[in-house]
Amino acid sequence: MKLPDIAFLHELADAADQQTLPRFRSSENLAISTKPKEGFRFDPVTLADREAEKAMRDLIAQRYPTHAVMGEEFGLKAGDKRAPCWVLDPIDGTRPFLCGLPVWGTLIGLLHHDRAVMGMMSQPFTGERFYADGSQSWAEGPYGKVRLQTRRDTPLDQAILHTTSPESLGQTSLKFDALDKAVLMTRYGGECYAMAMLAAGKIDVCVEFALQPYDIVALIPLIELAGGVVTTPDGGRPEQGGQVIASGCPRLHSQILSILN
Amino acid sequence: MKLPDIAFLHELADAADQQTLPRFRSSENLAISTKPKEGFRFDPVTLADREAEKAMRDLIAQRYPTHAVMGEEFGLKAGDKRAPCWVLDPIDGTRPFLCGLPVWGTLIGLLHHDRAVMGMMSQPFTGERFYADGSQSWAEGPYGKVRLQTRRDTPLDQAILHTTSPESLGQTSLKFDALDKAVLMTRYGGECYAMAMLAAGKIDVCVEFALQPYDIVALIPLIELAGGVVTTPDGGRPEQGGQVIASGCPRLHSQILSILN
Repeated sequence: MKLPDIAFLHELADAADQQTLPRFRSSENLAISTKPKEGFRFDPVTLADREAEKAMRDLIAQRYPTHAVMGEEFGLKAGDKRAPCWVLDPIDGTRPFLCGLPVWGTLIGLLHHDRAVMGMMSQPFTGERFYADGSQSWAEGPYGKVRLQTRRDTPLDQAILHTTSPESLGQTSLKFDALDKAVLMTRYGGECYAMAMLAAGKIDVCVEFALQPYDIVALIPLIELAGGVVTTPDGGRPEQGGQVIASGCPRLHSQILSILN
Repeated sequence: MKLPDIAFLHELADAADQQTLPRFRSSENLAISTKPKEGFRFDPVTLADREAEKAMRDLIAQRYPTHAVMGEEFGLKAGDKRAPCWVLDPIDGTRPFLCGLPVWGTLIGLLHHDRAVMGMMSQPFTGERFYADGSQSWAEGPYGKVRLQTRRDTPLDQAILHTTSPESLGQTSLKFDALDKAVLMTRYGGECYAMAMLAAGKIDVCVEFALQPYDIVALIPLIELAGGVVTTPDGGRPEQGGQVIASGCPRLHSQILSILN
């Protein structure tokens, strides 16, 4: 299959940005509802989530009517047999979105034969796009366009670890405490923005405990094509989500997995 | 005393921005050193911290040679008796700065008779300034200039709680767990940006456990002049730091204090 042009992912992101950015920090966000979800007592969804996903689905239906679409808000739309599947999270990090913190993003991923092959994260407040075009990873923003490369061979005791929230830690059998003690520092609260910074070589390890496919598919090629590694705790493919570990390089990744298991 | 014009705080922030922004996400930040500090096993300081504080101190020495200055990196410079004291944190949130996350800021506060009367937080990557001019609180950014007002009378079970890191939780006798259970959601990792979002009415409560005066002085008038309350756990003035609680309104604040104590 010829991959879609990255320009189409930018079109999707533009459509999502038009729905998310005007609602960021507006009082309209007070109209939130909550969906119960395993492991979290509160899972907010805003009008911005729903409208952004609708806008992207409309564009995909026009351009690629045979493709499948899976999104956080509106579920799965089946496509032709063996057709690629778009995987959408209109706002990854609805919580920081509600708090006014600019570390959320729109995630657009493309699965081909169940493998994540292209992905984009759009953060319209900072004016940044992080994306994997099928062969390389890039960031574009107020600073121009730069190729992303992970930081490699960071010694474990110098590594920066990120995870979204300690809220899930009680529910995993992974030895997160041991990892926390082994690294230089542990930070919380970055969501997809922390994964983008791993691709950019600023963070060395991200550990997440309860991801859905739409939380991770777009970020897999972003990290892999920047030199990083993304797997489940047993080293398997991460496209289905669940517990996911991302690292800057294979050497660090195997150290991390052996500590966590 | 006639307060300095807010334009001078913008000048200080401009000088700091010139030192911090070009170093954000640059490899120069790898040249970090660590200072041991109570409660944290790792306390990074970058060249950006030091150069930004120097630049601000130079401007203050020229314009207000009799004023005192207290800064994170270079300590206290005494001023004339009863002169105001500038309180500077060149980068509040050196950790998110190192991680590439745009939730750090330069803090510029002014104490008069030991009371915080003016303050500014500058976040040059997002192009935002949050400040208290002595009578009101404001945000300026790509979206224009808006007056800040806290969210008032949020029911406790709908409140959004922010704290920087669970790392300090083991060292406090405050009942943080009880507060965590009582609110809608708890988020981690926002540093000064979370305090600015409290002033902006997006977050309802911030609890911090080990602040220095330079971590909080600039933020006190920002929150107070937006309608919020900032105190120590016993309800006292927060200018000396330590354990500090900030809330959107007096009613919520007293609920929070009675849960924590």
